[in-house]
Amino acid sequence: MNAIIHPDLLFPAEPGVRSLARALYAAVKDLPIVSPHGHTDPRWYALNEPFPDPARLLIVPDHYIFRMLFSQGISLESLGVPRLDGAPVETDGRAIWRIFAQNYHLFRGTPTRLWMDYVLSHLFGIDTSLTAATADSSYDAIAEKLADDAYRPRALLERFNIEAIATTEGALDDLRWHQIIRDSGWNGRVVTAYRPDAVIDPDFEGFSDNLDQLADITGCDTGLWKGYLDAHRTRRAFFKTYGATSTDHGHASAETANLSDAAAEELFNRIRRGSTDERERRLFRAQMLTEMAKMSLDDGLVMQIHPGSLRNHSAAMMARFGRDKGFDIPTHTDYVAALRPLLDAVGLEPNLTVIVFTLDETSYSRELAPLAGVYPALRLGPAWWFHDSPEGMRRFREMTTETAGFYNTVGFNDDTRAFPSIPARHDIARRVDCAFLARLVAEHRMREEEACELAIELAHTLAKKAYRL
Amino acid sequence: MNAIIHPDLLFPAEPGVRSLARALYAAVKDLPIVSPHGHTDPRWYALNEPFPDPARLLIVPDHYIFRMLFSQGISLESLGVPRLDGAPVETDGRAIWRIFAQNYHLFRGTPTRLWMDYVLSHLFGIDTSLTAATADSSYDAIAEKLADDAYRPRALLERFNIEAIATTEGALDDLRWHQIIRDSGWNGRVVTAYRPDAVIDPDFEGFSDNLDQLADITGCDTGLWKGYLDAHRTRRAFFKTYGATSTDHGHASAETANLSDAAAEELFNRIRRGSTDERERRLFRAQMLTEMAKMSLDDGLVMQIHPGSLRNHSAAMMARFGRDKGFDIPTHTDYVAALRPLLDAVGLEPNLTVIVFTLDETSYSRELAPLAGVYPALRLGPAWWFHDSPEGMRRFREMTTETAGFYNTVGFNDDTRAFPSIPARHDIARRVDCAFLARLVAEHRMREEEACELAIELAHTLAKKAYRL
Amino acid sequence: MNAIIHPDLLFPAEPGVRSLARALYAAVKDLPIVSPHGHTDPRWYALNEPFPDPARLLIVPDHYIFRMLFSQGISLESLGVPRLDGAPVETDGRAIWRIFAQNYHLFRGTPTRLWMDYVLSHLFGIDTSLTAATADSSYDAIAEKLADDAYRPRALLERFNIEAIATTEGALDDLRWHQIIRDSGWNGRVVTAYRPDAVIDPDFEGFSDNLDQLADITGCDTGLWKGYLDAHRTRRAFFKTYGATSTDHGHASAETANLSDAAAEELFNRIRRGSTDERERRLFRAQMLTEMAKMSLDDGLVMQIHPGSLRNHSAAMMARFGRDKGFDIPTHTDYVAALRPLLDAVGLEPNLTVIVFTLDETSYSRELAPLAGVYPALRLGPAWWFHDSPEGMRRFREMTTETAGFYNTVGFNDDTRAFPSIPARHDIARRVDCAFLARLVAEHRMREEEACELAIELAHTLAKKAYRL
Repeated sequence: MNAIIHPDLLFPAEPGVRSLARALYAAVKDLPIVSPHGHTDPRWYALNEPFPDPARLLIVPDHYIFRMLFSQGISLESLGVPRLDGAPVETDGRAIWRIFAQNYHLFRGTPTRLWMDYVLSHLFGIDTSLTAATADSSYDAIAEKLADDAYRPRALLERFNIEAIATTEGALDDLRWHQIIRDSGWNGRVVTAYRPDAVIDPDFEGFSDNLDQLADITGCDTGLWKGYLDAHRTRRAFFKTYGATSTDHGHASAETANLSDAAAEELFNRIRRGSTDERERRLFRAQMLTEMAKMSLDDGLVMQIHPGSLRNHSAAMMARFGRDKGFDIPTHTDYVAALRPLLDAVGLEPNLTVIVFTLDETSYSRELAPLAGVYPALRLGPAWWFHDSPEGMRRFREMTTETAGFYNTVGFNDDTRAFPSIPARHDIARRVDCAFLARLVAEHRMREEEACELAIELAHTLAKKAYRL
Repeated sequence: MNAIIHPDLLFPAEPGVRSLARALYAAVKDLPIVSPHGHTDPRWYALNEPFPDPARLLIVPDHYIFRMLFSQGISLESLGVPRLDGAPVETDGRAIWRIFAQNYHLFRGTPTRLWMDYVLSHLFGIDTSLTAATADSSYDAIAEKLADDAYRPRALLERFNIEAIATTEGALDDLRWHQIIRDSGWNGRVVTAYRPDAVIDPDFEGFSDNLDQLADITGCDTGLWKGYLDAHRTRRAFFKTYGATSTDHGHASAETANLSDAAAEELFNRIRRGSTDERERRLFRAQMLTEMAKMSLDDGLVMQIHPGSLRNHSAAMMARFGRDKGFDIPTHTDYVAALRPLLDAVGLEPNLTVIVFTLDETSYSRELAPLAGVYPALRLGPAWWFHDSPEGMRRFREMTTETAGFYNTVGFNDDTRAFPSIPARHDIARRVDCAFLARLVAEHRMREEEACELAIELAHTLAKKAYRL
Repeated sequence: MNAIIHPDLLFPAEPGVRSLARALYAAVKDLPIVSPHGHTDPRWYALNEPFPDPARLLIVPDHYIFRMLFSQGISLESLGVPRLDGAPVETDGRAIWRIFAQNYHLFRGTPTRLWMDYVLSHLFGIDTSLTAATADSSYDAIAEKLADDAYRPRALLERFNIEAIATTEGALDDLRWHQIIRDSGWNGRVVTAYRPDAVIDPDFEGFSDNLDQLADITGCDTGLWKGYLDAHRTRRAFFKTYGATSTDHGHASAETANLSDAAAEELFNRIRRGSTDERERRLFRAQMLTEMAKMSLDDGLVMQIHPGSLRNHSAAMMARFGRDKGFDIPTHTDYVAALRPLLDAVGLEPNLTVIVFTLDETSYSRELAPLAGVYPALRLGPAWWFHDSPEGMRRFREMTTETAGFYNTVGFNDDTRAFPSIPARHDIARRVDCAFLARLVAEHRMREEEACELAIELAHTLAKKAYRL
């Protein structure tokens, strides 16, 4: 037992329910991790170099961490976050770590706190709380471990008991790191996923050039609608050769469209000529979700839709630091009308899997559970991003299960760049699901053996099945 | 005690709270059922014929069941759901039942599971869980019971201890089954309710013909606004002679209007001439809610508004199987602006009762509780449809009570076609309310004797009072 | 111990969690009250006259109470609420009190019930429940106490252990009562707050006259944009001399704008000339929020935004009784797009504090916590108005903490005119927070000593810091 992570973490306090939760958790805690969607860097697994210093590994790239510190007046520069203009930022990992340690109380009640405690405890063997006083000792302890070969990426992947992990690459990526992984003969299962936003969204930086590049890569004429679609097909097939079983789509809304071929072609032509009409650009994104779904029906790639984040809310921060700096804010997102065209086209297909996520929890019980509870092609992704948290995951179960059941959900996604935290995230998800199931058993809404079956499904099997891994 | 329904079903696990919940439940469990709004078929009570086989009684007509099975790739044809084109579908009840039994795990965590277990256990005396292995034995056990006179509709209504039950009939219905019930001398209390959507909603199939038919039935000139309103008054009076105490209105939104008489008349004339202007058609529906409310003020019929369901989301399924096949999806619904015209007209009348329902839980604490907590004419209907579930009913209480209190709510509605499940639905509602009240007592927010009074109000009295039954 | 308020009020039933909650509460229950935002009348503290009779003190001015009674058919006239037309209303306090007592059961499950029980018990020493039978005895007991000098405003403020309390005055107020308080030499800390709605909102009654009056008071030319802004600066400075540390803004929406100086000036000119263009009027309100924020950056006044209430929903009640009669209804409120212009202008300033409130709980986890969790200038106000209730405050913590943490919140606001209930409101907030923290400790999400630190922050320190008191 470790002082900073209790074995009963997140289990309900009532002794009877806690005892049930413990029993369920015992059945799942050592199951291998299936990580079907995430953003770890395939280069790590390819090169298997040591990770950098503790701050550069755990603080600098973690938007959950630097956004909270920034919200309390701490500059991103002092946390080592690079500026686009190349102006100097803190480079001393120890100094960055000290700021984090001094302000660790800000994370009380947040999942970051739980993830970090878990990493400190389970991965780095630290058993004292992180404070200003323990900043240096914990920094040194982590740094020492990171120098050890047992802390290189491949060793960690094995230690983490990761059965399969998906990275996410853009449509233009050459997948070289995946090639190196494959060539290496290492038996870790790292697969890619097809993320074509840069060649689908006319608002994406360099959209037109991206399409030219797509033509170069595929030999398809992306000046024509048919050629453009063929280029997607070609890239999807290429991604599949690197193990991809899914695509991923990050759109501002869940809007889809179901135009006739002729109308879609005409729209593409206008977009390709650089239409600046916002409605046309939106419509093109919407139509492309449906096109991707149709291709999924053909090639079997599971489709993921991650809508509803208003990216880069602060123009000043975008200009200074670029994307992904904690300024992506959820917005109200409609699904009922938005998904209807796509569902009209392919929603009744039992061999298609479209996994929908949301940042708008109001849609759980009102829209998403009712939709996923009837359309064979639709599944609900787990609580996402800000909602990947104990209360968020609990609300997800409470608000979706009664209408969609458990079997229209797809297990857990860690969806993270923060490789060391992956076991923590899966562990917390397992604990929250066991706690939820334990309550159902304690209230006689389910038998214990059913809950045990479900705990295993939620922790392992559903993700494998849904993502065809 | 029966193995598949525990006496403590849905009571909180903490022993002190559970003990309070048990005590409250003991005071209400045997109270007669008041079912003030539902969709059972009056023909059953009129003819009192035996129910059909287990599948045709319990599976084929239950949209909660077939939508979940369909969502997991099971065709509606294999479940015996009739096709509009008359193409063959499964007719063997046992085969349908087997599919259900094999897939019963899909319903884990859903209210369907609780209702079905309750029915199997309490109504049919089955004490083994439903699985593929027990499919045939349970089918046989149910079939045997259904052949017994004690399982005919009237006997069940009495066994269920149903003090009063309302069916729902369209404005053009001749209420013949209600006439037969009345003529039979049977003392079961089955009343009708006035549901005029087909003669109010210009988008309803055959709207114009429906109005002609309304003229024929009533002798009123439905070509004129005054005659059209008189026709409604006539039908409402006719329905009252069959015990109706309420009207019911299923609109796509909660929009109401409060036009001048002249403007309303002009609008009616345009609608009657077949206006295809969507705004006019919406405005007419909106105006008619207010007209119905004004008539309620005169004739004392309690008005129910059930808004916010987008019907028949899948055009393909609508074409193949018709309405009510599980493809009605809730949408975001506004009440604050939408109800204002109606409330301006009649909202301050203490002798009027307008019961509003929602499928959009976000409106509970934001809109509906604040409105019902001040307008004398307004009451909140219970958690509806997808939210008629343990978590849904708990959220309803947690999000409405603090602002609207208990006395601006109206007890429970089963709102179901599934006659055998009525006791299960009321029992679950009573248990959830007792659990909620027990928590308030345990947290010293209310005295136990107050909770006991309230448990009885919520289980029985409020429905009788609100619906004037 | 008093029979009607239990020492364990609002603590979770599970004995282990309850024990933790008690321990946390013991650390905060006697902390002084900081009331940084509210609506008590400074005249009370200035003149220190005895309060009127029990009904006029506790019922007639309390919109929570009369709205609930009204919703159940009791007229406002019978409750002594004055009519605008001067028509007679009940003036016998005892008669009003009897109505309240007879209908006290309507408040079961509401915060009003808890506040009232607390006041009856802790302030007036009444230990029997309020019912028709005890109406007269409780009335007499309260009336007797109110005649005692120990129940005058200043004595109560001291007895309530109120360290500081803010009132709210309009921009045109002469702050005479605050002057009298200051001149009196009394050492109670009563400060004002700057509420300029009447000179910012073109829809406010008498807007144009108000601006003329603003010119008279300040000597600034409010016919000119620069003069108008200077007039605000002058009044803000004047309010600061009476202890103001904050401004307050009650807008229909959270919309802000960030126009160029020239565009803002042009807009002002059109508004000043009486533009009736609703878009312009909205834009002016929006722009003024940003102007106020910029002034706050200069003068250090903390800015509060209270958006999203649709005021005076019933035109008839507005005409008969005027504003603030329980007919203000929350509406759907957007923050992500609405606040962006203001945040673009000043959101990154760590020395600015903008406290945002909401009546739309859906924005907690979707919008407000993500925004407050990254913008240094933004803080979340506590659960407001209808949500200032045990369930409402619990939802606030559950839905904001994981993304915004505790330190981007600002403690409790009682926000009330109901002076006698202030200790009750703070006590309940402290209990709810202790209950929430106790659960986190019991689930090992936080150590007990951390929870104790936080309990003190939430009960006392955060409000002082955020409001600079």
